Amino acid sequence: MLKEAIYHRPKDNFAYAYDKETLHIMLQTKKNDMDSVGLIFGDPYDWADGKWMTKTVEMIKTGSSALHDYWFVAVKPKFRRIRYAFRCMDANETCYYTESGIYSAAPEDISHYFCFPYMNQVDVFQAPSWVKETVWYQIFPERFANGDPSINPEGTLPWGSTAPTPTNFFGGDFQGVIDHLDHLVELGVNGIYFTPIFKAYSNHKYDTIDYMQIDPQFGDKETFRRLVKECHKRGIRVMLDAVFNHSGYYFPPFQDVLKNQEKSAYTDWFHLRDYPVKPEPIPNYDTFGFVGSMPKLNTENTEVKAYLLKVARYWVEEFDIDGWRLDVANEVDHQFWRDFRKEVKAVKPDAYILGEIWHDSMPWLRGDQFDAVMNYPFTNSAIDFFAKREMTAEDFANSITKVLHMYPANVNEVQFNLLDSHDTPRILTLADGDIDRVKLLYLFQLSFIGTPCIYYGDEIGMSGGQDPGCRACMIWDETKQNKELFTFVKNLIELRKNVPAFGNDGTFKILAFDNQSNTLIYQKQSHNRKILFAINNSSKKQAAHLPDFQKSSCSELLIGKDSEAAYHRVPFEMEQIEVPSMGFRIFEYRL
Amino acid sequence: MLKEAIYHRPKDNFAYAYDKETLHIMLQTKKNDMDSVGLIFGDPYDWADGKWMTKTVEMIKTGSSALHDYWFVAVKPKFRRIRYAFRCMDANETCYYTESGIYSAAPEDISHYFCFPYMNQVDVFQAPSWVKETVWYQIFPERFANGDPSINPEGTLPWGSTAPTPTNFFGGDFQGVIDHLDHLVELGVNGIYFTPIFKAYSNHKYDTIDYMQIDPQFGDKETFRRLVKECHKRGIRVMLDAVFNHSGYYFPPFQDVLKNQEKSAYTDWFHLRDYPVKPEPIPNYDTFGFVGSMPKLNTENTEVKAYLLKVARYWVEEFDIDGWRLDVANEVDHQFWRDFRKEVKAVKPDAYILGEIWHDSMPWLRGDQFDAVMNYPFTNSAIDFFAKREMTAEDFANSITKVLHMYPANVNEVQFNLLDSHDTPRILTLADGDIDRVKLLYLFQLSFIGTPCIYYGDEIGMSGGQDPGCRACMIWDETKQNKELFTFVKNLIELRKNVPAFGNDGTFKILAFDNQSNTLIYQKQSHNRKILFAINNSSKKQAAHLPDFQKSSCSELLIGKDSEAAYHRVPFEMEQIEVPSMGFRIFEYRL
Repeated sequence: MLKEAIYHRPKDNFAYAYDKETLHIMLQTKKNDMDSVGLIFGDPYDWADGKWMTKTVEMIKTGSSALHDYWFVAVKPKFRRIRYAFRCMDANETCYYTESGIYSAAPEDISHYFCFPYMNQVDVFQAPSWVKETVWYQIFPERFANGDPSINPEGTLPWGSTAPTPTNFFGGDFQGVIDHLDHLVELGVNGIYFTPIFKAYSNHKYDTIDYMQIDPQFGDKETFRRLVKECHKRGIRVMLDAVFNHSGYYFPPFQDVLKNQEKSAYTDWFHLRDYPVKPEPIPNYDTFGFVGSMPKLNTENTEVKAYLLKVARYWVEEFDIDGWRLDVANEVDHQFWRDFRKEVKAVKPDAYILGEIWHDSMPWLRGDQFDAVMNYPFTNSAIDFFAKREMTAEDFANSITKVLHMYPANVNEVQFNLLDSHDTPRILTLADGDIDRVKLLYLFQLSFIGTPCIYYGDEIGMSGGQDPGCRACMIWDETKQNKELFTFVKNLIELRKNVPAFGNDGTFKILAFDNQSNTLIYQKQSHNRKILFAINNSSKKQAAHLPDFQKSSCSELLIGKDSEAAYHRVPFEMEQIEVPSMGFRIFEYRL
Repeated sequence: MLKEAIYHRPKDNFAYAYDKETLHIMLQTKKNDMDSVGLIFGDPYDWADGKWMTKTVEMIKTGSSALHDYWFVAVKPKFRRIRYAFRCMDANETCYYTESGIYSAAPEDISHYFCFPYMNQVDVFQAPSWVKETVWYQIFPERFANGDPSINPEGTLPWGSTAPTPTNFFGGDFQGVIDHLDHLVELGVNGIYFTPIFKAYSNHKYDTIDYMQIDPQFGDKETFRRLVKECHKRGIRVMLDAVFNHSGYYFPPFQDVLKNQEKSAYTDWFHLRDYPVKPEPIPNYDTFGFVGSMPKLNTENTEVKAYLLKVARYWVEEFDIDGWRLDVANEVDHQFWRDFRKEVKAVKPDAYILGEIWHDSMPWLRGDQFDAVMNYPFTNSAIDFFAKREMTAEDFANSITKVLHMYPANVNEVQFNLLDSHDTPRILTLADGDIDRVKLLYLFQLSFIGTPCIYYGDEIGMSGGQDPGCRACMIWDETKQNKELFTFVKNLIELRKNVPAFGNDGTFKILAFDNQSNTLIYQKQSHNRKILFAINNSSKKQAAHLPDFQKSSCSELLIGKDSEAAYHRVPFEMEQIEVPSMGFRIFEYRL
């Protein structure tokens, strides 16, 4: 038994209140090392005749990463407090893993046991309930649709007339979005994430000049109010991008610093290292990256904090937006985000707070800061396996299982699962132009735990490389749109919405993988349904067999084409199946 | 190489800002598995010719627990942000441990690397600077000294006339403490932790009736104000006990609930499960343990929260107390403690906030809640080895090293290292009445990292079993005090204050242990001094040899007796030493 590989530490993803009554507990052990793991637990104050009262429940193995197994159990402690340890067994040995170490017998002294002292309601991670049911659509406003040429910025080019560059403009605006909401409704998305819309110099608007103004190239506040209303009318939520890590170069307080230097009233609004303040050759003030035009804001300064929190409240209160996506969220202090959460939730308790963090984000997802982060570890695994085909089925199974065990289940349910964005190449480009790979990506994304996001234009087959390539004008000429892909995505969204086990109510588990055939079978399970997804990520048809097969209870789920229904079920009676090259099949078991 | 045992996750004790410039990074590996570990790191935005710029620094092994080694390095990233990975080498293999897994070559793609995105000042854990230099003395006010018999509670017994029981009274009070401050000054302590002093029914006062009133048996607010002033005059800080997890049975809001039941305005002040509210047989409301007379307060209720935060501010603002010890701190919600910290620090930025938590407390020690916790993992190890002698030298070395690696270094420096308290038997009793063991305990406690606490009376050799035994009246009859022990403790405190490497400026490391002879050698190092402690925890004299011995630079530190100076140095020239039975020797190297 490999005792050194056993790991647990209370809180975070290892022990957390899933809700006020339910405690989730997880243990990491070496892969394939234990025959069984049990949780020994009791109320810390439940003693009889000088002996602490405990019981043991078996844990189940919920998955494996490259090196480790994950064991899980949910318990409901009557008085919402427990101490606990783990009983680990292999063929030769039983040991007891506690906070103070590993023992050959369960310690009698309660002080050795791990502790989850009390499940306080207010500490339970809780994201807005609507997020779980949301399929997002990301819009880069300058490039979605030009609905009002009268407000085109200077030098606006004809729509789609040339490739996007870091500096050109095509005049996308709010009226354009309003004009095309039917496209979104038809696709079935019910949330829009807009990259920044506030007054800024660039086409991407990540260099804010005024956080209280709409950039005039998009419209005015009334147009925006109308846009939000039109979205809400259609059941579509609206999320804006808050760029609070840094301002733009032309943000008046920074201009004041440049002008008045030491004498400026705004010197503490930024992290100035030296005078005179200057952006070249390397800025002598803290910046996003080394970008002199994006001076880092000092979010510890009370005036800056008050100003940004006012901004955060204003757009929620005045325009009824439903969420904030937080740019470069990881570089801003935790205290700021804690107060941000309080302010925003005070104004709108079910607002969604999404952080842009590309790495392990546990410290921001403890219930006091964000509801979710942009799930790039998910993105990376999916892209490497399905799009680039640089990852084996086994490595994909391991890495995606690791992603699911990084955070608590209530976090996973609202994670923002993107395949690409304005910061990455588009999926079709990553997939070498192969629509079949893109379809597998969508199938996986839309059947996974979390809330998926579609980057504008991907659904009709747009391609584009790393920024600025990925920011091309949306193609509205229907003859140039991939209608079949659109229908495919639309039908998957329909399935996700209507079949709970397909969507966000199901638990996910990898059942089988094969590196030779590059096939993968995973399941989603919910209530009385289990859905099996057989994926063939190879260029040849492959045989597979369905695990736990029971002929009488199995149907195949077929995705509709063209004008067919979104999906239909046909009875299925074969354990052995064939999966077409770069294809998939979906089966449903009634349990 | 045992890859499954390698563990790191950014933040907490694994990666944290020690100060605004310095990042501490730790890696856990299997014990004795690696020959070397290096940290590969770079600024996330520092690229040249499309290649991310990194460098590598070697990490040092700072200690081992039973199963693991701990590797450490401090780095100062120029722009306060890094991504990093670990290079692990044994004789056969080199591997690279990253956030996304383990690789045989360092990944080129930066997205695999761990991230510490930005060292924001406000997120740096920072305890008040005075705490590091403090030696605490814990007073249970009912039992320290009766200085004003006119306020004796009904039925007060003559001082020390009988054994303490859960319900008897001896009339200890504030005047008694004021009268005996010279005792504390002579001993050299410079902080007092008082168990509760607010109006309550019991002798221990953990069942508060009124948080805004002094219990009349101790004096009035003016006496308390005088007590704080007299302490401050002598350089002694004052910490009070905040019992905010639960109130007493006679707390008026709870009495109102009992009287008016569903109709009470205070039903949401507690966690009531059923009506009529009743304490028997098991309380049908949440309590501390199952103690019906201690109803758990609903700290999520805004009125309760406002009331308790007012209490927290009041005693600091009005009486200038220096800290709060938080009773049953682990069962109160984190949000409450975050706001508690803000309120208290707003009134007195250098107030000390100490949580009573007996288990791993990392989630409370991230800079947003407590400054420290009562370090019972330290206590348990020290008691098991020195007092009970139930633990081998090796197990002690492992467990104390684990304790030191559980938390960030800036937390360890202010941890509240107690040997016993009003909640445990006294050390002399735990040590079977053996004063030599008690001396070794004090030597270890007073030379360890953190802030030590002496439980009233221990320093003069009082004994006593588990509560109520440990709560006996302080012995003021000098003929019954162990004066030699008092002088010993006093001299150790003097040494701690005057010799930086002995005290809280030194880094701690176990150098050697031997289970056969039950000996242990550890070092403290600071600037240009290294102090070696050779401990013989056996009943025979034992030989040992001094590691890294250099005759020309070594002195022995001798503790004074009776009226001698607290300590003196004598040159020492022998690598081989003898340590007396149940004794110790201390050596100092000039570096």
